[in-house]
Amino acid sequence: MSAEPTRKGTVYLVGAGPGDPDLLTLRAARLLRDADIVLYDDLVPEAVLALCGERTLRTSVGKRCGRARITQAGIHTLMIDSARRGLAVVRLKSGDPLVFGRAAEELHSLRTAGIPVEVVPGVSAVFAAGAAMQVPLTDRRSASKLILIAGQHASDKTAPQPLWTGTLPLDATLAIYMPGRDAAAIAQELRAAGLPADLPCVAVSHAATRQQHVAAAPLSRFAGVTMGAAPVLVLAGYAMAPLLLDAASGHDLEQTVDAVLATITS
Amino acid sequence: MSAEPTRKGTVYLVGAGPGDPDLLTLRAARLLRDADIVLYDDLVPEAVLALCGERTLRTSVGKRCGRARITQAGIHTLMIDSARRGLAVVRLKSGDPLVFGRAAEELHSLRTAGIPVEVVPGVSAVFAAGAAMQVPLTDRRSASKLILIAGQHASDKTAPQPLWTGTLPLDATLAIYMPGRDAAAIAQELRAAGLPADLPCVAVSHAATRQQHVAAAPLSRFAGVTMGAAPVLVLAGYAMAPLLLDAASGHDLEQTVDAVLATITS
Repeated sequence: MSAEPTRKGTVYLVGAGPGDPDLLTLRAARLLRDADIVLYDDLVPEAVLALCGERTLRTSVGKRCGRARITQAGIHTLMIDSARRGLAVVRLKSGDPLVFGRAAEELHSLRTAGIPVEVVPGVSAVFAAGAAMQVPLTDRRSASKLILIAGQHASDKTAPQPLWTGTLPLDATLAIYMPGRDAAAIAQELRAAGLPADLPCVAVSHAATRQQHVAAAPLSRFAGVTMGAAPVLVLAGYAMAPLLLDAASGHDLEQTVDAVLATITS
Repeated sequence: MSAEPTRKGTVYLVGAGPGDPDLLTLRAARLLRDADIVLYDDLVPEAVLALCGERTLRTSVGKRCGRARITQAGIHTLMIDSARRGLAVVRLKSGDPLVFGRAAEELHSLRTAGIPVEVVPGVSAVFAAGAAMQVPLTDRRSASKLILIAGQHASDKTAPQPLWTGTLPLDATLAIYMPGRDAAAIAQELRAAGLPADLPCVAVSHAATRQQHVAAAPLSRFAGVTMGAAPVLVLAGYAMAPLLLDAASGHDLEQTVDAVLATITS
């Protein structure tokens, strides 16, 4: 399938990854090069768009940045009309195209219109953040689950939804995308969900880019953390323990991490 | 960072993605080409290893397939010794290198030994499966969370851990990696965690490859499903509803999906 040439009249829902053009898939890079038109979100940086072919028309369909607003229905119409005119259309979404990005509506509109679709996965932010910080996202000793939560959808006008109802598991790494509230509010919600005071929490701004900013603290002190500029990803869980040690001392990380992990898992 | 040449004496923890070589990142493909030695897991297929350079030494460190067993400590030693001899070492892991793959131990052993490390993220199986099946993994209307659960670690000799303690949220998509039990046992656990009889469940074998096999059923009938050959990924949640309709009728999918989604979210 993936070795096929880029097809006219098809819409490709493509993951742009976290922003570093080197973290696109080979398939995504080839589609950008061959596409007739690329419809991209605000979070996709110029360095990624530079992979487009010389004759590729690039069109922002971002909903922020003070531009004339395009509605979700408008994006659907643009995709469908472009495909019907016989263009190879790339709908480029930051991260992976199927999480937290209106993929359900876009896939449905394309199917209803009878437009051929291919979905090309991408590296979602939590994997890029973990790689950039060099921390595991799960750990046999302390985290057998990875939970991706949308704090707020980009298109939401209303107040953020509650992060979780009930008790959160201790043996998980949480990744809160688009947190939509400050560190104090997040800390309060995590404590209310039963998470302990010593749980390592990290706010990562502009993960896996040159602007990356990392702030780590145990949950009991996370309220005081400066989260940095959007996009922000919050990670919480014992798998993040090495970052906490790093933030606390700046020294002796390698010597102490074993002892601390032993404490956590005992 | 990512534009740097491949460095000698460094270990690269690299995600191989789901198995399709087109779904490696550009960075991963370049590292495979330039590495002196690639240490790969069993699940990495020949088509991916074909991206290695002509002079790259390829060494399986898989723990299955009837080979002489290599221990986790043995893998650490092999990585560290290779780096100390001045080789550019790629430790290639299927999917993303930081989830469900002993990354915590491997990172820790490398840091303790003072070996420079770079982590290159990859496309984890759930994203590839969603893309291949063309279903959203979250949906503003029905799923604001994506939960990756390890049913059983590849190295575990013991019985599978419980999938979840307490109540699972309704507004989530679950992805169960290495389920380690049959469909009946999974169905029983999901019902015990409070999930409803009509919850769409899907077993995907060899996701995003030519051998892909998909079996979908509501939770009430999932016990009877044939899951197919390993590796298997189980997905459960209302975002999977289009697959259930597909499996049920094979017809009228586009006409009915709207009505069913309306029911679910009302």
